[in-house]
Amino acid sequence: MLPELSDMKTFREALNGDSGPDEAALQGAADRNGQLTKPPGALGRLEDLAIWYAGWRGDARPLISAPQVIVFAGNHGVTAQGVSAFPPEVTVQMVMNFEHGGAAINQLAKAAGATMDVHALELDRPTADFTTGPAMTETELVQALRVGWTAVDPNADLLVVGEMGIGNTTPAAAIACALYGGDAADWTGRGTGVDDAGLANKTRVVAEGVTLHADSGDGLDILRCLGGREIAAMAGAIAAARILRIPVVLDGFICSAAAACLANVRSDALDHAVAGHQSAEGAHGAVLAQLGKKPLLDLGLRLGEGSGGALAINILKSAVACHSGMATFAEAGVSDG
Amino acid sequence: MLPELSDMKTFREALNGDSGPDEAALQGAADRNGQLTKPPGALGRLEDLAIWYAGWRGDARPLISAPQVIVFAGNHGVTAQGVSAFPPEVTVQMVMNFEHGGAAINQLAKAAGATMDVHALELDRPTADFTTGPAMTETELVQALRVGWTAVDPNADLLVVGEMGIGNTTPAAAIACALYGGDAADWTGRGTGVDDAGLANKTRVVAEGVTLHADSGDGLDILRCLGGREIAAMAGAIAAARILRIPVVLDGFICSAAAACLANVRSDALDHAVAGHQSAEGAHGAVLAQLGKKPLLDLGLRLGEGSGGALAINILKSAVACHSGMATFAEAGVSDG
Repeated sequence: MLPELSDMKTFREALNGDSGPDEAALQGAADRNGQLTKPPGALGRLEDLAIWYAGWRGDARPLISAPQVIVFAGNHGVTAQGVSAFPPEVTVQMVMNFEHGGAAINQLAKAAGATMDVHALELDRPTADFTTGPAMTETELVQALRVGWTAVDPNADLLVVGEMGIGNTTPAAAIACALYGGDAADWTGRGTGVDDAGLANKTRVVAEGVTLHADSGDGLDILRCLGGREIAAMAGAIAAARILRIPVVLDGFICSAAAACLANVRSDALDHAVAGHQSAEGAHGAVLAQLGKKPLLDLGLRLGEGSGGALAINILKSAVACHSGMATFAEAGVSDG
Repeated sequence: MLPELSDMKTFREALNGDSGPDEAALQGAADRNGQLTKPPGALGRLEDLAIWYAGWRGDARPLISAPQVIVFAGNHGVTAQGVSAFPPEVTVQMVMNFEHGGAAINQLAKAAGATMDVHALELDRPTADFTTGPAMTETELVQALRVGWTAVDPNADLLVVGEMGIGNTTPAAAIACALYGGDAADWTGRGTGVDDAGLANKTRVVAEGVTLHADSGDGLDILRCLGGREIAAMAGAIAAARILRIPVVLDGFICSAAAACLANVRSDALDHAVAGHQSAEGAHGAVLAQLGKKPLLDLGLRLGEGSGGALAINILKSAVACHSGMATFAEAGVSDG
């Protein structure tokens, strides 16, 4: 069902070739929603979520029983510019923490009943510093996209993609700035916690990268020039999920930057995705606004790893459980007003 | 551990007699939080929730394994004034729906791993119409408080109280108006969906009730004069939970009005409670602001039943799972910046 990803041409064709949700399932779910034992609209966004989910699954009365969380990790040459409060060695240390079950995302995935996979992308070979040249070659980009593309379990029924990569709020900010314009300062935040001098330095780095690659092309070219391996892998997984009809819950700033590269190439590339949360990383709200996504949660998280997306799995599961499990007015013998 | 509730004097003494969270557990949880493998503060409100929960449970590294949802149902004499879009028979019909597992709260409690109990309070004997006299006698209030008081499972480790009662946004609005002042229109909303004429009528009813009982006394007197049996039962359960050291997730407008009656008598009566969500019922945000509670979720729910509270159980469970399950920097061998 998922074509093999041999080069960027294949990826672009796949990204543009896929169709939308199942209209019959959408209509069937909307009809069912109107018959459930509650006042019209009383479950608010849970109703919209359930109908949207039904459409993408092609099932008017679906269940969520196999959510998948995938965490991609990558290292960034741009950390040489001193953009992070943590040293780059932490990326591989955190990958081991994921594998041993000790990170936040392990607990959140488990609490949400999700499986969790970790893919470390050539951590000993960081991307190039984007202030001096493109972060990746086209071959490197395809390889990273493919890691995401093939990481999605075709039997999953909901997907969260998360990331770990010391320094990666810097490429995410650069991508957002390149896609949406404005000043580097509009898109650059404190990440894991740089101080005022660190923020000024990081903003300079973002500005230099965006200027150097200003003519790079569309979202996928921007992803190559300013992104990173784990960011490209997230984009690959999100694109694959659409073709596999697996709805996606977006995580925070970095995940949204990856997703935004796809939306720049095809405006409805993220119709199968909802925004799991709004991160406390400053520019995330602006990226979500550009994507036209209203976050499900706003709890001040700014961790990455897929944490906000995993937390929001619970909301999706609850929405679908109401939709598919509730009695209708007729079944329950309840007067419908 | 929970005193028997024989009269209002017993209730008032119990409400005022209880002490606060465990300071050692609070400190232990805060210390642990600072050592977990994440940047400081990166889990946002999840960190605060976990520490708060630890304090009330007296355990610096707690788990949530036994959440309880209780739904109380009552009928209201004030429905004779035409304040609801649904007929009063729906209350008992929905109680049967709860018992048969067909309502939204059944699905949401199950999705959150919570047990669910239903208590119908004399549905064939509605409270008096509060526009003509007090809704309840003192004996009736004590009986209703006791239903809530004894409904809490002492072995539960998290509590959500919900309600069903056709017409009960009207007493909730009247309670809020009596407690906080302002015009009846400030506190009166569309409930399950009254039209403009219905809203005007409902506002008149609230205004008449508040005027009639303007000198009734404190929050518990207001609860008797303007409340209802299920509202009093919720207050009883919330007060009992504090004594039992069971943290509470508040639901929507009606639950918050019940809780507000307690907070009027003792300012820290709700320190063991968080606001699960902000309801779409117009005045709920204003009640939460009065209570100093920031909602965890804002998804446009306006169903009652404990639905928003049950949905938020997932957030609490996830917060505590991170806190207690994550590795420390030392355990994981991760550099802490």
